[in-house]
Amino acid sequence: MSKSPAAAKRGIPSKENFKEWYPFMVEAAELVDKRYPIKGMDVWRPYGWKTMRLIDNLTHDEMERTDHDEVHFPLLIPEELLDKENKLVSLLKKAREEGIDPSELRLEDEVEGFAKEVYWIKHAGETKLDNPMFLRPTSETAMYTMFPLWIRSHADLPLKTYQIVNTFRYETKQTRSFIRVREIHFFEAHTAHADEEDATRQINEDLEIVKNLMSELNFPVLVTKRPVWDTFPGAWYTIAIDVVMPDGRTLQVASVHHYRDQWARAFDVKYEAESGEQKYVHQTTYGMSERLLGATVATHGDDKGLIMPPSIAPIQVVVVPILSKEGSEEIATAARKIVDELKSEKIRVKLDDRDIRPGQKYYDWEIKGVPLRIELGPRDLKSNSFMCARRTGEKSSYSLDELLISVNKELELVNVHMRDNATAHFNQHIKKMPNLSIEGSKINFEQDLEEGYVYEMPFEGNDAEAELIEKETGFSFLGESTTPYSKEQKCIVSGKNTIKKVFLAKTY
Amino acid sequence: MSKSPAAAKRGIPSKENFKEWYPFMVEAAELVDKRYPIKGMDVWRPYGWKTMRLIDNLTHDEMERTDHDEVHFPLLIPEELLDKENKLVSLLKKAREEGIDPSELRLEDEVEGFAKEVYWIKHAGETKLDNPMFLRPTSETAMYTMFPLWIRSHADLPLKTYQIVNTFRYETKQTRSFIRVREIHFFEAHTAHADEEDATRQINEDLEIVKNLMSELNFPVLVTKRPVWDTFPGAWYTIAIDVVMPDGRTLQVASVHHYRDQWARAFDVKYEAESGEQKYVHQTTYGMSERLLGATVATHGDDKGLIMPPSIAPIQVVVVPILSKEGSEEIATAARKIVDELKSEKIRVKLDDRDIRPGQKYYDWEIKGVPLRIELGPRDLKSNSFMCARRTGEKSSYSLDELLISVNKELELVNVHMRDNATAHFNQHIKKMPNLSIEGSKINFEQDLEEGYVYEMPFEGNDAEAELIEKETGFSFLGESTTPYSKEQKCIVSGKNTIKKVFLAKTY
Repeated sequence: MSKSPAAAKRGIPSKENFKEWYPFMVEAAELVDKRYPIKGMDVWRPYGWKTMRLIDNLTHDEMERTDHDEVHFPLLIPEELLDKENKLVSLLKKAREEGIDPSELRLEDEVEGFAKEVYWIKHAGETKLDNPMFLRPTSETAMYTMFPLWIRSHADLPLKTYQIVNTFRYETKQTRSFIRVREIHFFEAHTAHADEEDATRQINEDLEIVKNLMSELNFPVLVTKRPVWDTFPGAWYTIAIDVVMPDGRTLQVASVHHYRDQWARAFDVKYEAESGEQKYVHQTTYGMSERLLGATVATHGDDKGLIMPPSIAPIQVVVVPILSKEGSEEIATAARKIVDELKSEKIRVKLDDRDIRPGQKYYDWEIKGVPLRIELGPRDLKSNSFMCARRTGEKSSYSLDELLISVNKELELVNVHMRDNATAHFNQHIKKMPNLSIEGSKINFEQDLEEGYVYEMPFEGNDAEAELIEKETGFSFLGESTTPYSKEQKCIVSGKNTIKKVFLAKTY
Repeated sequence: MSKSPAAAKRGIPSKENFKEWYPFMVEAAELVDKRYPIKGMDVWRPYGWKTMRLIDNLTHDEMERTDHDEVHFPLLIPEELLDKENKLVSLLKKAREEGIDPSELRLEDEVEGFAKEVYWIKHAGETKLDNPMFLRPTSETAMYTMFPLWIRSHADLPLKTYQIVNTFRYETKQTRSFIRVREIHFFEAHTAHADEEDATRQINEDLEIVKNLMSELNFPVLVTKRPVWDTFPGAWYTIAIDVVMPDGRTLQVASVHHYRDQWARAFDVKYEAESGEQKYVHQTTYGMSERLLGATVATHGDDKGLIMPPSIAPIQVVVVPILSKEGSEEIATAARKIVDELKSEKIRVKLDDRDIRPGQKYYDWEIKGVPLRIELGPRDLKSNSFMCARRTGEKSSYSLDELLISVNKELELVNVHMRDNATAHFNQHIKKMPNLSIEGSKINFEQDLEEGYVYEMPFEGNDAEAELIEKETGFSFLGESTTPYSKEQKCIVSGKNTIKKVFLAKTY
């Protein structure tokens, strides 16, 4: 950091004004630069990119733990492959609407334009291409073209692959750094299995990975099975993971899809079973994106700046020597020793020995959300101690002889406070749905729904009733929680007893 | 690896037939799959991608050591930014009129040629874009649009950035995995400095990094200052790094460019000097690509398959238990213990306990180039020892009590053999240029030049003479070695004494 972002302080918006706070903060903390001359395509600055790569590393670790292999597919997809996907998607949509078994569909039937969101390459150099291509919006089409070449027999299954790449969507809605962008830093796992059950096991493994990752990022999430009308078109079902943002709207940060054998039928992905029979594979996907960083910024930040979870903080500890007229050399030496010791223990630490006032340094690192600040002044050194300030509040003094153990303890305390705060916010923003009565196509609520909250309710109604509620309230059904009520409740629509818990929210 | 690539053995071409060996081997070793339906865009398979990421890690380490910050720029570049390049063109045109530097004369050709090589995006969804964009072929234009926003004063310098991204070129020549592809896995460092001298220091640092990396990859390289007519347009000078391939042709695997302040003038990248004066920065770039992997495959492989340098081998050691009827369980346990012990020491190790013959296993791992194979049979276990086979030849037996030290020693021996073999090949393929005489526009050589060799000569001639030699021989001037002759030699063209050593080669 060559320049002090403290200057950015003046005019720092309050987080209560989230709409202004968020776009201000992603630039003030030097995560991205939005001045690149294409809307929705930001430049990742070193601090932001390091954070993103640390998030990616958590993902890589989970993928390695669960025996996924990393691949890397070409960005460009020939238009002709899209036809297959379009046919599949539009047919499944239709089938779902009409309640038809997808296996009875003939893929040749219909084509519809999913092509509205993609960037097209129809020219290269001075040549008009005979075979246009588009930039991947996601990689089903590219990958499932290759899967039949890699899968021959049951011995090749399960095939568990993933990649971390950039994807592209021609967004026409308002763009927001990390949340809605046109070039998306993306994670996608694609797996193929011998049968539906094994694919279901994969879905469960994915949800366990989600849980681990969210725990590292210190925020609670809503995990719901999306309603049928909001299921990814080629999927049997979709489970989505949403974060409750400061304004009470939800942000989908991950999703897992069970495809059954629907894509396999379209792309002819078969294997020889032990019986010798040719069978279609069952597939799943699991997607996440840079929205994880957007949710981190939004959930944990405060009026002073970001607060980075230690697991992904590019700088976990900043050491600020407090120099006085006397003994400055000793303090500088002791500060360097602290840095060296922490570095040797793989703690990401930075020495801030810039020639500016300590207060200004504190300011800078608070904006960037460094979890711990170590201050070392003459009095500290005299008592063989150091001062440790947590970004989540409070200072403590520790003996220099217990540097590492104290730092680790303090980092863990930061984690605890971050989780507590995020959970408190989460709980405060989920309300019970008020009672209602339906008369024909009209709903009467006992109380009006408030903006800024997620609503929870027992629900055993039908799709038509759900649609009516969405229409009347302007809130969307996120879907059915994977954690149902422990006891039966009365559905406020149908009056039936149920343990199904659904969430409704305004969404990003 | 679910399937044995041993089957691929049948019909494995000899390396002497490099043209067939290379494309066969990149697929047989499961580095890439070339069956993706776009020519020149391969799918990276897990083994290939892991190797590439390990090469990237070596680069990341060097970048961190030398205080470069990693950034990540958008892939798409607006066409309008080309105007700035046009400005550069006109500036250099003016320089030409004033007869300043011949390297600058070629820039306009390059910009024209460059437009011929890019993929254009003129459509998104169903919209024809008002502002067309292209996929980055390299990132000068994108980055130097942002540099003026990041550089204000001398305190912001040097600015040392890099990124590892994919770049795109619409190749019309024959494509080859890693060597000539249309989507290129690319490394590019871009730096800005207060003056020419500091930029020159950067060039020297880059060459030191090159040296470190090539040493990790175990191959010698030619480092030459490219002749003026082969200098990257816009550069003051270019230093390129070439590998001598098995067929004697050279492959450029890296290049560094000193831009002086030429790009800064076009993109208006200025800073306030300590004197208060506004000055243009001096810039450098340093590029490398997946060609490093291509050169690794080509240099070290043999008739049995690849040989991976231990530094980038996804699997450094494979452990093969030799099971007999009796004591199989003990051997399996001992093999797992070896794997665990090596893993805990961060050695990349794999247990091959597939139910196939050991010979077939050896075969598979030889194709993939795993540097060390540990065999553990009943006799070994009885004597508390294990057998260690190097991919570069020879087996040795070691005590199990000295597992780690022996494995590290053996890996180092593999490095030594790889370097020796590569250096021997390198030296055998560089010949002294035969004597020649020039009569008008005709050259007579005492001996004909042979295909399959690089030629070396003392050269103190002019550009016209060099051009004539290129034209007559079909060999290209790689340029002047950064390691000149230790004693003066007579230039075979002009007869002048010189220590300048130039290389000529057929190039990829």
